[in-house]
Amino acid sequence: MSASMTNNTASGAMSPNMTCKHDLISSDRVEGTSVYSPSGEKLGTVKYFMVDKASGDVAYVVMSFGGFLGMGNSFHPLPWKTLHYDKERGGYIVALTREQLEAAPAYAEDMSPDWTSSQYGSQVDTYYGGLPKM
Amino acid sequence: MSASMTNNTASGAMSPNMTCKHDLISSDRVEGTSVYSPSGEKLGTVKYFMVDKASGDVAYVVMSFGGFLGMGNSFHPLPWKTLHYDKERGGYIVALTREQLEAAPAYAEDMSPDWTSSQYGSQVDTYYGGLPKM
Repeated sequence: MSASMTNNTASGAMSPNMTCKHDLISSDRVEGTSVYSPSGEKLGTVKYFMVDKASGDVAYVVMSFGGFLGMGNSFHPLPWKTLHYDKERGGYIVALTREQLEAAPAYAEDMSPDWTSSQYGSQVDTYYGGLPKM
Repeated sequence: MSASMTNNTASGAMSPNMTCKHDLISSDRVEGTSVYSPSGEKLGTVKYFMVDKASGDVAYVVMSFGGFLGMGNSFHPLPWKTLHYDKERGGYIVALTREQLEAAPAYAEDMSPDWTSSQYGSQVDTYYGGLPKM
């Protein structure tokens, strides 16, 4: 992942269909993007995104959290809207405490939830939707 | 990648923040999703998405195209809006001819364009924006 993304504005001839693209990351390189608390504590790292194949929206960012020396990490899907990308840090800020993350829906590293129904997504959305705003 | 995604509607108690999620694919598994022409000809396979880190939108789908027995493939970034996900085929349909794809911006497999400025994205958007509608 490039750590030197800059926010350039487009110049020159522009197609009417063109939108200003910046801060792009390839999906095969999202692994390892850091996730921080608002106070700057590193909470974990991104493992992958869950992308809606029809709309192209990132629905969840799955973060590896916890564990020691890489042992026993759990995977926490975070709804996209809980994250804010911080260019200076080169990672995401999530407005959650460590305790709120520890209590959140999660699964073991070698497992995968059933994303084909909307039930698991509902659990995740309900949990994060019900948290007090920080 | 699961080939048996079904379009389930949510049921049961729903959080007001919940949206119906379905057809999710993890970003580390997008590689290999097939891309077809409208007539059903397989044109190539997805290698990765380019995701906007701030908005979470998939800006481009990078497709491996051409080559023989895996040799000499070129990578073609396709704007998200040129693609339609077809659940039955388990892949994307792109409303382009093989000739239009062959003439499109592309790069060699071991290269990477400069996505940090918006110039390369502009080239891609301008090319696809200027094609006659099929």
